[in-house]
Amino acid sequence: MDVGRVSTTKAYNIINYYCSVVTYETERRVIRMKVMIMGMDGYLGWPLAMLLKGRGHDVCGVDNFSRRRNVEEVGSWSATPISTMEKRLEAYEKEAENGIRFYEGDLTHNDFTELVIKQERPDTIVHLGEIPSAPYSMIDVHHCNYVQMNNIVGTNNILFAMHRHAPDCHLLKLGTMGEYGTPKVDIPEGFFDVEYRGRRDRLPFPRQPGSWYHLTKAHDTHNIMFACRIWGLRSTDIMQGVVHGVVTDEMVSDDLLTRFDFDEAFGTALNRFCSQAIVGHELTPYGKGGQTRGYIALRDSMQCLTIATENPPDEGEYRVFNQFDECYSVNELAEHVVKVAGEFGIDAKIWNIENPRVEAEEHYYNPDRERLPELGFRPTNSLDDELRMTIPKLMEYRDRIEAKREAIMPKIKWAA
Amino acid sequence: MDVGRVSTTKAYNIINYYCSVVTYETERRVIRMKVMIMGMDGYLGWPLAMLLKGRGHDVCGVDNFSRRRNVEEVGSWSATPISTMEKRLEAYEKEAENGIRFYEGDLTHNDFTELVIKQERPDTIVHLGEIPSAPYSMIDVHHCNYVQMNNIVGTNNILFAMHRHAPDCHLLKLGTMGEYGTPKVDIPEGFFDVEYRGRRDRLPFPRQPGSWYHLTKAHDTHNIMFACRIWGLRSTDIMQGVVHGVVTDEMVSDDLLTRFDFDEAFGTALNRFCSQAIVGHELTPYGKGGQTRGYIALRDSMQCLTIATENPPDEGEYRVFNQFDECYSVNELAEHVVKVAGEFGIDAKIWNIENPRVEAEEHYYNPDRERLPELGFRPTNSLDDELRMTIPKLMEYRDRIEAKREAIMPKIKWAA
Repeated sequence: MDVGRVSTTKAYNIINYYCSVVTYETERRVIRMKVMIMGMDGYLGWPLAMLLKGRGHDVCGVDNFSRRRNVEEVGSWSATPISTMEKRLEAYEKEAENGIRFYEGDLTHNDFTELVIKQERPDTIVHLGEIPSAPYSMIDVHHCNYVQMNNIVGTNNILFAMHRHAPDCHLLKLGTMGEYGTPKVDIPEGFFDVEYRGRRDRLPFPRQPGSWYHLTKAHDTHNIMFACRIWGLRSTDIMQGVVHGVVTDEMVSDDLLTRFDFDEAFGTALNRFCSQAIVGHELTPYGKGGQTRGYIALRDSMQCLTIATENPPDEGEYRVFNQFDECYSVNELAEHVVKVAGEFGIDAKIWNIENPRVEAEEHYYNPDRERLPELGFRPTNSLDDELRMTIPKLMEYRDRIEAKREAIMPKIKWAA
Repeated sequence: MDVGRVSTTKAYNIINYYCSVVTYETERRVIRMKVMIMGMDGYLGWPLAMLLKGRGHDVCGVDNFSRRRNVEEVGSWSATPISTMEKRLEAYEKEAENGIRFYEGDLTHNDFTELVIKQERPDTIVHLGEIPSAPYSMIDVHHCNYVQMNNIVGTNNILFAMHRHAPDCHLLKLGTMGEYGTPKVDIPEGFFDVEYRGRRDRLPFPRQPGSWYHLTKAHDTHNIMFACRIWGLRSTDIMQGVVHGVVTDEMVSDDLLTRFDFDEAFGTALNRFCSQAIVGHELTPYGKGGQTRGYIALRDSMQCLTIATENPPDEGEYRVFNQFDECYSVNELAEHVVKVAGEFGIDAKIWNIENPRVEAEEHYYNPDRERLPELGFRPTNSLDDELRMTIPKLMEYRDRIEAKREAIMPKIKWAA
């Protein structure tokens, strides 16, 4: 089908059911879309595939399994024992009586990327297929270049293939709130109206990323904005906060679990704190712990990506959504984990360790978050309630975290 | 020697001579520096090597000769019959009784880049070693990725090698005024002070580049700014306007000529117009011809790069210089060429052709240009006087331009 029809009344295949797998209700009539998820084997990719399929969309995905290899390279594994893609797809088909198509391949290989996009001609490409780790990109020059090339070339290949074979397709691209850095002014959603020397313009908000990885997302942002301008492509660039949690409603069997990383490179603050609490390791905010960021639960990230998928931008439109729920300092996160872990009989302690990163440890932080709520985004749980689901679930995998305990403490240093 | 000494009075090797090869006089005492020029075989690289060597600096250079291959690929060649690097070095040594060291190699090969920087430990790296063509980057996905990877990885490799082996070295990096695009407000030199919702910050000026090539320069800017922040490296990021001309005082024999491109990909507006006039081709501004940019003569670009080399930034400082002389619309350039060509008996005509690019053809344009003049930059000639040197010199090579006349008209289209 043509995604252009989404905004018309000619929709020929209307799904109008209340979908139990998402916790918000929509009265809007949703059209069945063909969605291609790049990075479908990942933390976000796999639960999103199940959720969108459950909502009646036609879902296919792509992955080269680099995340599994890269996490192994840094001496860790997923806390959840994740199944192979074959088993996942088989288990999902058994539950859903309906399949998800999968293509194994590398987005940096243009022949492959062009072929899958030409073959599927999706209405939406959700591009989660990038290497997402700041510390991993900071290991050395080889990791820096690997992450920058992987992310930039993969996105370029998608843009060219869309232009050639699916010009109406909506590119829903995962960026990061980290693109903005920590400026002393409010952070808008992508663009800001400024007056400078008596003249006014609406300009892209300056990007000040804090790692080679975060820089790739800013580079993508510039590349995608340009492609939309010259080719009339449509794209939503998601500036996402830090995602936490491990449970979504679709994970009804062990083969359907998503991955959960807790190592220094691929684990993120809140997920790492939960893992530390569970194995009796001090929670380790870096430095003063005043670093403030936006956070969002896994199920809410899924909700937002679904909303963006089902509300595509206009032809030629490049739009930016800041995607997070609430802002917390790292110290506040640690305190929330200590409190909720206590409810499960865990006596967690906080230990502010030397900061391996070069970053402001106390700073102003006030990003906007309006566009997704305007489209219907409502956070599902409070942070504490979400932690009350994450911590007991993770306790099932205590042994797996314990086995890779050495991978938690930071060894990769920014100024090394 | 340690570049740190440049700003002290402990300089041990002072050159205090009036240098005839540059047309401005300096009373400042200049210290002998070890300068490594990346891209020494190029349009700017070769004349800069001779100029800096003539001023008494210790000069070495690197090139992989990709420019010669890439121009051949698009069906053209240099209007000037350039010699091999071997012949150039031999001829220069004969004139100067003093040698320039040269390393053939590819900056994207980290082992090579690290080795030359470790071996030379330069005080200044002038990084001109990137693919500089917007149209070339727009040919297809392969050229896009080739240009983006070549430029980004080469610069990353230099940054890591500096951090490891020459942390005091000054990276003098060639960016482009094209990084800024054509905003509706004045363009400052890299950073601007803004008030936004009642708070103030000094932020990087937003980049809105207009080709995959121009985007690489914006990506470099972000990467270099980050490296300076985390590692304390020092860098001058030159936002250069369009360079024109073919003559500098060092080119005293044919073997010392620099290249001069006139094809649609590697030739730039003013140089292409001069070439068109000489072979009786209409001058072809693209579209309405109101596109306004900053321009600078080759000899003045050399002057600016020399000034930046001899006035390095402080440790950890990342600074941006806008490097151009005057701003002109493309139509104005064409009119200047018609006028001066007429003085040489050439009856040139202007033909505004369909614009192959996606760009504003009439727009506000008011970039700052203060920092280089503050350090002593004085443009040598008026545009017309410079054209009075370029056009007769190029007339010597009329046959070579005529032989590749087919390469002048634009075939590469932005929206294709």
